[in-house]
Amino acid sequence: MKLVVAGIDLGGTNVKTAIVGRNGALIAKDSRPTEAEDGLETVLDNMSASLEAAMEEAKADPSDLVAIGIGAPGPMNWRTGVVYSPPNLPGWDNVPLADLMRERHGAPTYVDNDANVACWGEFWSGAGREVDSMVCLTLGTGVGGGIVVHGRLLRGPDGTAGEIGHLCVARDGRQCNCGSKGCLEQYASVTGMVRTALEGIEHGQRTILTDMCGGDVERIDGKMISDAHARGDEFAGWVIKETGIWLGTAVGSLINLLNPEMVVFCGGMIAAGETLFAPIRETAKVQSFEVPYKRTVIVPAGLGADSGVIGAAGCALQRYEEETKGRG
Amino acid sequence: MKLVVAGIDLGGTNVKTAIVGRNGALIAKDSRPTEAEDGLETVLDNMSASLEAAMEEAKADPSDLVAIGIGAPGPMNWRTGVVYSPPNLPGWDNVPLADLMRERHGAPTYVDNDANVACWGEFWSGAGREVDSMVCLTLGTGVGGGIVVHGRLLRGPDGTAGEIGHLCVARDGRQCNCGSKGCLEQYASVTGMVRTALEGIEHGQRTILTDMCGGDVERIDGKMISDAHARGDEFAGWVIKETGIWLGTAVGSLINLLNPEMVVFCGGMIAAGETLFAPIRETAKVQSFEVPYKRTVIVPAGLGADSGVIGAAGCALQRYEEETKGRG
Repeated sequence: MKLVVAGIDLGGTNVKTAIVGRNGALIAKDSRPTEAEDGLETVLDNMSASLEAAMEEAKADPSDLVAIGIGAPGPMNWRTGVVYSPPNLPGWDNVPLADLMRERHGAPTYVDNDANVACWGEFWSGAGREVDSMVCLTLGTGVGGGIVVHGRLLRGPDGTAGEIGHLCVARDGRQCNCGSKGCLEQYASVTGMVRTALEGIEHGQRTILTDMCGGDVERIDGKMISDAHARGDEFAGWVIKETGIWLGTAVGSLINLLNPEMVVFCGGMIAAGETLFAPIRETAKVQSFEVPYKRTVIVPAGLGADSGVIGAAGCALQRYEEETKGRG
Repeated sequence: MKLVVAGIDLGGTNVKTAIVGRNGALIAKDSRPTEAEDGLETVLDNMSASLEAAMEEAKADPSDLVAIGIGAPGPMNWRTGVVYSPPNLPGWDNVPLADLMRERHGAPTYVDNDANVACWGEFWSGAGREVDSMVCLTLGTGVGGGIVVHGRLLRGPDGTAGEIGHLCVARDGRQCNCGSKGCLEQYASVTGMVRTALEGIEHGQRTILTDMCGGDVERIDGKMISDAHARGDEFAGWVIKETGIWLGTAVGSLINLLNPEMVVFCGGMIAAGETLFAPIRETAKVQSFEVPYKRTVIVPAGLGADSGVIGAAGCALQRYEEETKGRG
């Protein structure tokens, strides 16, 4: 019997599933729309259909399934698997997601924060396979974070640890949705990068972005900034570099605080490559002590877009093994 | 036989020793000048004399001494007990401090960063006795830091973790001695607080500090700011509050990052009481998520000025027990 673990990445737009071996090797994948606007039952149906399709592609029998892990947007109670009311899953209110999926598929089911599962995916089976401590930043609409120390995910007593996106990098800085000001994600997420571009354009910076968006600056997104940079637009390059400087400032602080072996970046923005990574490294180098800086390997995700699905499976496997260890 | 552990806090001005029981209870203390300017041998002699005086006061025989722990200013190699060249111990260059003291007193000897031992002291025997995770900030000439997670001191692979004083709180902010800019300790140490006062006076703020220092603003120190505040000086109160806001900004970030159960403050500055702690709490509350903020107890050191000496003993005991555990 070939035992497998399922990881599900529940996003506001897509549900993705991976079937992986107990060693972290990817066996099969599925992806389909979440249809979040159709409410809870539809989302659960889509998750189940995605899981079943991936299991079929993996040629795995339901009895081979050791555990199901779900990476979900917070806030949540990771111990009970109850998801409160994520902004991008309308109508969800204290949903016992772990229980609902366990009932549907008969396997032990665990829910974790989506940034934590991405971090664990990279630690378990990606860029961080060989290290004992790492920090992971997921750059998207916000900046998600995960921290591994002593070989374990740092969750904290409330499961809220790792909120790197809400490190304050500028006192009295940009207003954040979380209620505070100057949070990293207001500068270093895709949204933050777009805001930096809009502020520059407002201040009269010349850029092909104004043509590319057809005069409607509200249409400027991360992809457009990346394309403008690829077409040689200096301002777009500056915007990406500025985003990297903010990230590097935070990475420098994290190196001083945690002395991690590795910092891994996930999310579509990492496609910007050295345009983004060079200022991250240069700034982090100035902003941290020499000995721990030299230790820290700063890299893009080793699993590409699959850190989350593979990590959801890995978190579930680890939690299942810890739970059953005590039972002999 | 009453087994005891010795903790030595090696500062640039004073050497302090505590003899504690294996349960962390303080039995006897000694304090005397370091005489750092007289070089290594004199400092070692003073450390030995302090240790012997405290042992005598504790009525403990040298054969009762389980281990010696030393909290020393960094940088250092905590594993080997070699101290590199601390700025306030002139002439020290790669001193094998653990070996030298082990030779003198015949007990297993361990050296740790002074901020880490203060943190461990509070965790083992002070304010953090009942928690599993905490952050400790020592406010002095600089801002020292220590982090306990998963019930263990977070050291990192190079032993440099916990440098909370070098969290960047202001990009392109005040120049720090470490080479980077905007580090917390440039705003929130005693030195940083004095700098805030001097900047205000330069900008024409009216304060009795200008009279108290006899017109020589270079004479303004933390004590003078505290005295001016006690005498009702509004500007001095503002300076302390401003220092608390910077600390609160960092504490908010630490709560979001680590979800600790407790944040403990050590150092003479905590005598400012609510004038300092109220802005720390208010700012941290705004700057962090509600659930982990509510969890976090923010308090002054439970061991007063003894966190370091007691913690040095505690670190040594723990390291000795870990080392000997494997040997059966």
